[in-house]
Amino acid sequence: MNKRYLLGGLLGVVAAGLLSAAVPSDAVLKKVRQYRQHHEHDLLTEYQQLLSVPSVAADSAGLRRTATTIADMMRKRGIANVQLLRANTAGVPPAVYGEVKVPGATRTLVFYAHYDGQPVNPAQWAPGLSPFKPSLASGSLANGGQLLPMPPAGTPFNPEWRLYARGSSDDKAGVMTIITGYQALAQSGVKPTVNLKFFFEGEEERGSPHLAELLRQHRDVLKSDLWIICDGPVHQSGRKQVVFGARGDVNLGITVYGPKRPLHSGHYGNWAPSPALALAQLLGSMKDSTGRVTVAGFYDDVVPLTATEQEALRRIPAVDEDLRRELGFARPDGQGKSLVELINQPSLNINGMRSANVGAQAANVIPTMAEAVLDLRLVLGNDYQRQVEKVVRHIQRQGFFVTRAEPTDAERAQHPRIAKVTLETGYNAQRTPMDLPVARSVINAVQSTVTQPVVLLPTSGGSLPLYVFKQELGTTTLTVPVANYDNNQHAENENIRLGNLWEGIETMAAVMTMK
Amino acid sequence: MNKRYLLGGLLGVVAAGLLSAAVPSDAVLKKVRQYRQHHEHDLLTEYQQLLSVPSVAADSAGLRRTATTIADMMRKRGIANVQLLRANTAGVPPAVYGEVKVPGATRTLVFYAHYDGQPVNPAQWAPGLSPFKPSLASGSLANGGQLLPMPPAGTPFNPEWRLYARGSSDDKAGVMTIITGYQALAQSGVKPTVNLKFFFEGEEERGSPHLAELLRQHRDVLKSDLWIICDGPVHQSGRKQVVFGARGDVNLGITVYGPKRPLHSGHYGNWAPSPALALAQLLGSMKDSTGRVTVAGFYDDVVPLTATEQEALRRIPAVDEDLRRELGFARPDGQGKSLVELINQPSLNINGMRSANVGAQAANVIPTMAEAVLDLRLVLGNDYQRQVEKVVRHIQRQGFFVTRAEPTDAERAQHPRIAKVTLETGYNAQRTPMDLPVARSVINAVQSTVTQPVVLLPTSGGSLPLYVFKQELGTTTLTVPVANYDNNQHAENENIRLGNLWEGIETMAAVMTMK
Repeated sequence: MNKRYLLGGLLGVVAAGLLSAAVPSDAVLKKVRQYRQHHEHDLLTEYQQLLSVPSVAADSAGLRRTATTIADMMRKRGIANVQLLRANTAGVPPAVYGEVKVPGATRTLVFYAHYDGQPVNPAQWAPGLSPFKPSLASGSLANGGQLLPMPPAGTPFNPEWRLYARGSSDDKAGVMTIITGYQALAQSGVKPTVNLKFFFEGEEERGSPHLAELLRQHRDVLKSDLWIICDGPVHQSGRKQVVFGARGDVNLGITVYGPKRPLHSGHYGNWAPSPALALAQLLGSMKDSTGRVTVAGFYDDVVPLTATEQEALRRIPAVDEDLRRELGFARPDGQGKSLVELINQPSLNINGMRSANVGAQAANVIPTMAEAVLDLRLVLGNDYQRQVEKVVRHIQRQGFFVTRAEPTDAERAQHPRIAKVTLETGYNAQRTPMDLPVARSVINAVQSTVTQPVVLLPTSGGSLPLYVFKQELGTTTLTVPVANYDNNQHAENENIRLGNLWEGIETMAAVMTMK
Repeated sequence: MNKRYLLGGLLGVVAAGLLSAAVPSDAVLKKVRQYRQHHEHDLLTEYQQLLSVPSVAADSAGLRRTATTIADMMRKRGIANVQLLRANTAGVPPAVYGEVKVPGATRTLVFYAHYDGQPVNPAQWAPGLSPFKPSLASGSLANGGQLLPMPPAGTPFNPEWRLYARGSSDDKAGVMTIITGYQALAQSGVKPTVNLKFFFEGEEERGSPHLAELLRQHRDVLKSDLWIICDGPVHQSGRKQVVFGARGDVNLGITVYGPKRPLHSGHYGNWAPSPALALAQLLGSMKDSTGRVTVAGFYDDVVPLTATEQEALRRIPAVDEDLRRELGFARPDGQGKSLVELINQPSLNINGMRSANVGAQAANVIPTMAEAVLDLRLVLGNDYQRQVEKVVRHIQRQGFFVTRAEPTDAERAQHPRIAKVTLETGYNAQRTPMDLPVARSVINAVQSTVTQPVVLLPTSGGSLPLYVFKQELGTTTLTVPVANYDNNQHAENENIRLGNLWEGIETMAAVMTMK
């Protein structure tokens, strides 16, 4: 493998679709596709069973059941040494592990996905949907799709159909496409070219607080040359993509306090201070009208993109205008920068805010408190604790006494503005260099399944605990996502486009047979 | 009644407790008290039955059932001509009417209360409480009170005990004390000195949108010299009070729009605009750090207090410091002005705000919208529609396109910031002059039941549709409240102190026998 090709030509060659012969053969792709086509009904039935098992952090029994369900699915596929990897810390959802040793293979890849999903508020889901009762639809419900019954076996599925459920995209789709990619190879008599290991985490949406512990504790069994992370969406253009990094992430909760009991807004309005107003003023102070974060030092520490990464950004198809129109807003934040540029900066997002009630439950009260949850995304160079500290200092500069606990009576009597700040586990960003040889094998493999050029993204806007893999195992990671971009990931009405599920199986099988 | 006494001496005389002989006799008070003491268990049982009937705007069947329950309670007490007064508009909760003609009486008083309550969010009530399952407690739960079973008949009730339920203070307490005040007189053989009419409204908490229609339509049956409004709390010092006016009120809802579907905060954070941030900045712009409203012209139009009213304010016991300590905040809004001064200004309060979720349901999303409900209180001179227009202009000046409907795709494409503003019915403030002769009779009657001076309040901070009575019937109103001030009116854990219920019965009986 010559250096010129790798460094200078990598992006150009892939973008032009000019591929070396060192890719999985068309014959393999054809076999995998045929296997899937003949088993679509069974696969979708099985996938719906998996999606029916609740898997959110608040439901530890559901998470345990999800883990054992996946272990059974793996055993059924002939994957060896299937087991639940546990942390020393009690109560941590186990990771599901399995492996396939390939005689003669010299490289080992670990395929990662996570089986836990974001929290759900069923009331916010569309009529007829329920987070853990998967529903089939003739397309995106947001674009006129209609709910459908499951067709009888033998009827072909339209790839534009969607399956709605929490986790359908993020990230049980990762689990399903990985193990079914292997299944399609095995059942078609195709031998993988690399040793396979599987690692399915159960705490990703909580910020992977015990991933480091799990990796450390099972370091020997997890030995490998590369982790393939199957999570997140393909590019908005519909093209497949290989992603070299992910932003880091940390959440913080802010609670602002008003009178100890809710007060009649008439009898006390103008006199009792409003926590809703105080929180609004605080949150409003964190960004300017272009969406730029005004927290002092927020954009410090950022490691600039390399020339290769900058070149990669330039080659990514422009989708911003189409996306903006589809999403129905007039002006993006970011002072004219593109979406792919902006995800290479740290971000601050209000995930939610609440004080008392709105709508039918609204009452004429001065609320006792107001809450917000912030999500900070981090890029290479940011440290999540340092980034949080900048925000805490900003809150203090706005005149708030910051505490980590419920304010005491003495604190209430002393400080006109009080904010409780609570932290969840966070992690830093990670980027894998774009010019590693093993990266080329993976890119070629993914490219072998499609004619359109694969998008190469220096970092995902979303987060994955890639930093932890590097730190604990010294291992490189590459992310190969499968879900459609318009999947309502993390929100109500999460869904997967069936075509993405099918193509994801092919993508995973291709990586397993990469040259 | 000489003018000097009325104008110059009214406040002084009452404040000093020096009362003319023209008040209900001690003998009447004693009979009313004895009657109540002998029937506490039955009265409280009956009151709990009334509180068990849900009576919120969203439950029209519950409101109907409440009205018929009250009508039955009135008939049981021998009140004549009990009927449901209906509006022409379909679906309006009826007012419950009844009357007692007193031979020889020359004046007629209408006693007003409302039987509807503020909306409820049962999840926010304390453990063991449910808005429409009344619970007895040994004191305020906020101050260590404990839930109690109903004691057997014959056991005396501690007046410090509380009864928890929606409407227990606001304002089924008004209904209960009015009709039971009459019952105690009738059962003790005491004849009222005035003709009595009763009018119990079912839409007060919605802003009395059909009160004008009801009054207009039943003008003849409602002929009177004075309306006694039994609503709101007694003074925070625990003293009884007579209130000469009420602030006006109007609510508006604000919805700010983001992307059409919720977006992953990682993949789109920094690029997709946040409706939560936009709403926070908008709300934050409406007041300065002292709580002064920054909406242009907000304090215009206010009719200044008369010399008598100003003098009344000066005589009101100072409770601000005690209240502030009890409520647990360091600094009130209002630049050093007292609570009673501040309720004589218009106010703007955030009743509630919400975008996506907080707490266990928070997810890493950019929300699609953010909502707030504002409550504007008005004083004499303000017009509720003009006041709303000032706020709408403020929203526009903050760069928002203001619409009354869901934004269209064309509007979304054109305007970076969009706010939907929805209005509920409102009404203006009203103040009855403090020096009317009939006011003196009422003050004297209330004063006859207590030794401590009655507080005379030019206006309540809370709102009542007094303006409508003046406009539709040309009638004067005086408000005689009975509830404890720390009743969590309008919020979770609403309660009435039993002592206030008992004293309220005496207050109402005293007004019915005023000289």
